[in-house]
Amino acid sequence: MGGAGRRGLFISLEGIDGSGKSTQAGLLAERLRERGIAVHLTREPGGSPGAEAIRSLLVEGDPARWSPETEILLFTAARRDHLERVILPALARGVIVVCDRFADSTRVYQGAARADLRRTVDALHDLMIATEPDLTLIVDMDPRAALSRGLARSSGEDRFEDMGAAFQERLAEGFRRLAEDAPDRCRLIDGAGAPDQVAARIWAAVEPLLARRLGPAGVT
Amino acid sequence: MGGAGRRGLFISLEGIDGSGKSTQAGLLAERLRERGIAVHLTREPGGSPGAEAIRSLLVEGDPARWSPETEILLFTAARRDHLERVILPALARGVIVVCDRFADSTRVYQGAARADLRRTVDALHDLMIATEPDLTLIVDMDPRAALSRGLARSSGEDRFEDMGAAFQERLAEGFRRLAEDAPDRCRLIDGAGAPDQVAARIWAAVEPLLARRLGPAGVT
Ligand SMILES: Nc1ncnc2c1ncn2[C@@H]1O[C@H](COP(=O)(O)OP(=O)(O)OP(=O)(O)O)[C@@H](O)[C@H]1O
Ligand SMILES: Nc1ncnc2c1ncn2[C@@H]1O[C@H](COP(=O)(O)OP(=O)(O)OP(=O)(O)O)[C@@H](O)[C@H]1O
Ligand SMILES: [Mg+2]
Ligand SMILES: [Mg+2]
Repeated sequence: MGGAGRRGLFISLEGIDGSGKSTQAGLLAERLRERGIAVHLTREPGGSPGAEAIRSLLVEGDPARWSPETEILLFTAARRDHLERVILPALARGVIVVCDRFADSTRVYQGAARADLRRTVDALHDLMIATEPDLTLIVDMDPRAALSRGLARSSGEDRFEDMGAAFQERLAEGFRRLAEDAPDRCRLIDGAGAPDQVAARIWAAVEPLLARRLGPAGVT
Repeated sequence: MGGAGRRGLFISLEGIDGSGKSTQAGLLAERLRERGIAVHLTREPGGSPGAEAIRSLLVEGDPARWSPETEILLFTAARRDHLERVILPALARGVIVVCDRFADSTRVYQGAARADLRRTVDALHDLMIATEPDLTLIVDMDPRAALSRGLARSSGEDRFEDMGAAFQERLAEGFRRLAEDAPDRCRLIDGAGAPDQVAARIWAAVEPLLARRLGPAGVT
């Protein structure tokens, strides 16, 4: 895997449940397309036919359906499929890939509760994925505010939200720590306010990268 | 994982498609039960509700549905679930687990074609499984004879058999090499002849272990 042949730009969005990742991923993709830039908008777990099939095993059913270790393996299998069949080919064609969640979600969700699981996540990532986004936008939100947004929806995919508010607190803290640990790749984005306000903060983080990668015109 | 708390005996059956593993696993379980020994007969991929769900992703569909790397991750996820929810609890209760395929199948099937995949299989096994059977019975068969047995069936799960006879040759060779590499754990069993003849060869390999583990009476 790795960055060989990567001409496009790989941008991931991360954050707790209901923080606005999907909303912002859509707005970012739209804004890039308006500039005439080729974009592929995708999400994890899922994003390829195989990974979507694995996704339905992961997001449906009882919270105790899978052990943390089995869950990590399934997320990594889905990510591998998504990466090799969708993300890397798009990057090789020079497309900007906007991905709603990527490896950081596994690091934080599965690694938040137990330190030895974080080591397992990292070892699996190094062995089977070994690819990082060029830019990761971490949408930072008060967990209670995010949870109340999330509760307004009903998708049937509520396994993680069912784990409760204390868990969401740990996740938010985990994402903040990640932003500190990888400051070159990650930008912490304040998720409060209206969608357009958040989108403006995100654009301020993305635009400099476009100029550098795609030239001053920002067009592929 | 590992052998902590293992009081029972963990026996796996391995070999190419159609070599008679399932037939022999059934006969062995029957013979043990006739002796009053508690047996759990199981199989891979599968053997637990979660692993069976993963199995259907693996055995159905186009041979190119998954890359070798994604396939290895899915097999490892299924094995982890099977191990922690079925095999280890049974062994802790003192039960003899007879398992139709285990980690050696992944080593040989996924590792036969490319050496670097064998290293990936081994690294994943060390990280996420780290458990070996006490005894592995490798049923050795001429691939053409085995293939003609297999063709008499029609299970709809033909993805691997569809990969052809040359592949089965490489597998048979891979299983033989495995038996040489792990002589303490593996016994190569001649799979030719009637089921009862093969069963007698298998019993000759299993019985000494029973006497050692369960005492001369061979009863738990
Ligand atoms: N800035 C915002 N202000 C108010 N509501 C918002 C805002 N952004 C998104 N929402 C709403 O909050 C809910 C969650 O947003 P969204 O689905 O984008 O979050 P998410 O981070 O993708 O959540 P999940 O992790 O569950 O996928 C949606 O109903 C969405 O319409
Ligand atoms: N010793 C034998 N002689 C002749 N036929 C046999 C013998 N053992 C099994 N068979 C038949 O050969 C076919 C394959 O046997 P079996 O299903 O036990 O093999 P297997 O190794 O489990 O195959 P697979 O890898 O496809 O699961 C079956 O139809 C079975 O009834
Ligand atoms: Mg979302
Ligand atoms: Mg069988």
